Amino acid sequence: MSQKYQQLECIIKKDFAYNVALSMLNWDNSTLAPPRSMELTADAIGLLSMESYHLTVNPQVEQLLEDLQQPEEYNSLMPHQKNIVKKMYKSFRDMKKIPADEIQQYSQLCAIAGGIWENAKINNDYASYKDTLSQIIEYQKRFATYSKAESQSIYDYILDMNEEGFTCEILDAFFDKLRKGIVPLIKKINENGQQIDDSFLKVPFDLEKQKQFCRLLAKHIGFDFDRGVMAESAHPFTMSFHNRDVRITNHYYEEDPTSSFFSAIHEGGHALYEFDIDDCYNGTAASSPSMGAHESQSRLYENNLGRSKAFWEPLYETLVSYFPAQLKDVSLDTFHRAINKSQPSLIRTQADELTYSLHVMIRYEIEREIFQGTVSVDELPALWNQKYEEYLGICPKNDSEGILQDSHWSFGGFGYFPSYAIGSAIAAQLMHTMKKEMDIDRLLQTGNLEPIHQFLQEHIHQYGGTKTVNEFLLDTTGEGFEPNYYIEYLTQKYSCLYNI
Amino acid sequence: MSQKYQQLECIIKKDFAYNVALSMLNWDNSTLAPPRSMELTADAIGLLSMESYHLTVNPQVEQLLEDLQQPEEYNSLMPHQKNIVKKMYKSFRDMKKIPADEIQQYSQLCAIAGGIWENAKINNDYASYKDTLSQIIEYQKRFATYSKAESQSIYDYILDMNEEGFTCEILDAFFDKLRKGIVPLIKKINENGQQIDDSFLKVPFDLEKQKQFCRLLAKHIGFDFDRGVMAESAHPFTMSFHNRDVRITNHYYEEDPTSSFFSAIHEGGHALYEFDIDDCYNGTAASSPSMGAHESQSRLYENNLGRSKAFWEPLYETLVSYFPAQLKDVSLDTFHRAINKSQPSLIRTQADELTYSLHVMIRYEIEREIFQGTVSVDELPALWNQKYEEYLGICPKNDSEGILQDSHWSFGGFGYFPSYAIGSAIAAQLMHTMKKEMDIDRLLQTGNLEPIHQFLQEHIHQYGGTKTVNEFLLDTTGEGFEPNYYIEYLTQKYSCLYNI
Repeated sequence: MSQKYQQLECIIKKDFAYNVALSMLNWDNSTLAPPRSMELTADAIGLLSMESYHLTVNPQVEQLLEDLQQPEEYNSLMPHQKNIVKKMYKSFRDMKKIPADEIQQYSQLCAIAGGIWENAKINNDYASYKDTLSQIIEYQKRFATYSKAESQSIYDYILDMNEEGFTCEILDAFFDKLRKGIVPLIKKINENGQQIDDSFLKVPFDLEKQKQFCRLLAKHIGFDFDRGVMAESAHPFTMSFHNRDVRITNHYYEEDPTSSFFSAIHEGGHALYEFDIDDCYNGTAASSPSMGAHESQSRLYENNLGRSKAFWEPLYETLVSYFPAQLKDVSLDTFHRAINKSQPSLIRTQADELTYSLHVMIRYEIEREIFQGTVSVDELPALWNQKYEEYLGICPKNDSEGILQDSHWSFGGFGYFPSYAIGSAIAAQLMHTMKKEMDIDRLLQTGNLEPIHQFLQEHIHQYGGTKTVNEFLLDTTGEGFEPNYYIEYLTQKYSCLYNI
Repeated sequence: MSQKYQQLECIIKKDFAYNVALSMLNWDNSTLAPPRSMELTADAIGLLSMESYHLTVNPQVEQLLEDLQQPEEYNSLMPHQKNIVKKMYKSFRDMKKIPADEIQQYSQLCAIAGGIWENAKINNDYASYKDTLSQIIEYQKRFATYSKAESQSIYDYILDMNEEGFTCEILDAFFDKLRKGIVPLIKKINENGQQIDDSFLKVPFDLEKQKQFCRLLAKHIGFDFDRGVMAESAHPFTMSFHNRDVRITNHYYEEDPTSSFFSAIHEGGHALYEFDIDDCYNGTAASSPSMGAHESQSRLYENNLGRSKAFWEPLYETLVSYFPAQLKDVSLDTFHRAINKSQPSLIRTQADELTYSLHVMIRYEIEREIFQGTVSVDELPALWNQKYEEYLGICPKNDSEGILQDSHWSFGGFGYFPSYAIGSAIAAQLMHTMKKEMDIDRLLQTGNLEPIHQFLQEHIHQYGGTKTVNEFLLDTTGEGFEPNYYIEYLTQKYSCLYNI
């Protein structure tokens, strides 16, 4: 092996150790840690982040990465090593401009912010959170300013960090298309007058049984409990330490069981991606795909597969046996229609597949304003409410179900929300291709999801973060990002469901 | 502040971060991690251990510690800084002789060993574990050989690491005294013919309610859930990250509820110690008291307080309300006698207070032989069974309830077991002193455990690891380690219970 690559590998391995430790501390903080632990654990997180930073962002690493990209070195590398060098160099360039002490302060801030956000949400107390949010935004702005191209806007830089190649220009066009395609559809449904009845899903469902059924759902789609864990947190998420330890969380609502069911499938979809990443990328800068790539898989499982009738055919009898009192008189058809009911609502994670993209669009527009500097943190709750009124015709009754509903901003997850919509569009594009190669409905009806999983593993998952969305779409579907499939899919599905 | 001490403090803070991370990875591995995670997480643990080692064991630190002990520097230090320097120097001397790569390999081995032990115990398969155990023993022997005084035996060195000042000579005498005092008592009880009936505790008790009641018990003794967590693991344990995050685990048996009740009180006793350690020792070499010191607190709460009738007076009605079907016809007197029933049994953690020390003595004798080299790992199961036959008159029916029952050796916890007996003796000695200062029974009867907690905090807990057992005993009780109180306590308690 190249001597220089061996040197790089030592650094990668050490950084892997820091990242495992930091991920574990963050995981624990989101799931189990006692309220006051961060008073001191935040110091440890800050210090370890700084160690990781100093290890990977220094002139020696820069020299190594540059040397390894010289033809004589580069050509001697194995393909995965080439990918790792390229990815490391990209993230190195982004990181090297940020001063180490700011990284440390920012890590410490984010370590505390999650708890502050959670308390604010519980107590419907935006005031107790807004200064923290403001600080996180300031750090994001400053970090972007250090690294972005001069002509690039701050938010374009943030978007590109989340989803290489995507800009406000592309997203404005994408959301415009979506608005034009979907808003009339939503209008038709609401004018139709014949709303789907899902009241049988809004009664108490035992929480313990919900948990058991979510385990079963995760297993059904291929979640490997020998390499994975399911836990609870305020907001469902997936965290991967490496491909032998991938964790998903869920949140259970007594009178809304399908919230946890579809979160289990959604997070399970993320987890499959992480399980499948090739061993050679474990713990490297190349192990982590973009947010949009990730969301394409979670949403493909949650919506394109998970909300189809075929998906539930082999499962429905079992579901009824878990909840006979609630479901024994409900047919699969009725259940299938209920889990696809479309109605404007306030909470993104509980939104139906059709209106979901409007929730995302609202966040996208707010983030764009935040980074353009045209809105202050004080004005955010009102702006949020105003946009819900405008696009969805409903208004949050308090900040807990308004500006405070998502955890993302509390860990600096700006630029993430558009990826949900990008992911949905990619999922539709991938489904279009897969349907040419296999009888998806037949596979779902027989409960055999393995060929679908294999297709995704082979074409997408195994590569980890070494292909961009546009690259793997081109390789898999023969064309770049193309949102028309998504709009066609939604139009066809909801026209059929609502007979319009 | 001394400039040299400031330098040392930077190192202490960084090492604190490593230790928090390592503790967290170990905690997670014992409570939640998926079965295959250690295939890769063990690498991270090994690397972080090595980073911590290199940070604290190097000539610069040695020089700093030596300089700080020179009068002109030392006299300028604050009292807690003096304690920290002394403790760091002691652990430095022990560590510096062990080569770094062996530390790393050993950490990785221990990270895997827990899972191997757990599987072996579940599958009653000692053969699958014995090579791992053998490797851990070899490391322990080698590490001791690097550091021990020439005239010191390996096991004496290991004992001293666990409990400063204790040797085989002292422990042989202690266990001899115990054997002479307790074995006749046990014999009398068994010949007496009038065994206590505890059959009402050997029926199914709902696991969820057990968990709730254990939470209540922990709170009752002062466990602070704002700074602590209760979780589940194969074997109950306590782990402290710092005094804002102290965690205890429990294991629940459907037909043996008092096992979890007394584990909650026991681990809760450990936790109080860790909560109470002065802020100035957080994350330093001086934060961690000896095992015997720790066990004195857990056993004081579990046995001396927790198994007294007065302790249950304010709690018993609540307990009955949790389990009316099982306990509504059982009086507090009957319950109190049942939780103190003494009968030779096979499982240490479920043993009664009286026979418990014989379980400890067996492990002590086996460890002594292991490190004298007079027994091989292949012979351990038979030796274990033979000693149970000899001292307790009963024989394990398989290795799961024999040689595989304890987790300790799987994480290298040799020399720990004697501390359980030492701790019991210290607890009795402390109780003797406390009873002169306050009416313990009255406090327990009114459910006011705070004055007891305060006494222990003031005289023992706050000092963390800066006082040895003999030092704090002398300061608190006016004499050094004196096991006679323990024998008197047991004799009086069991003579009374069994009317002998």
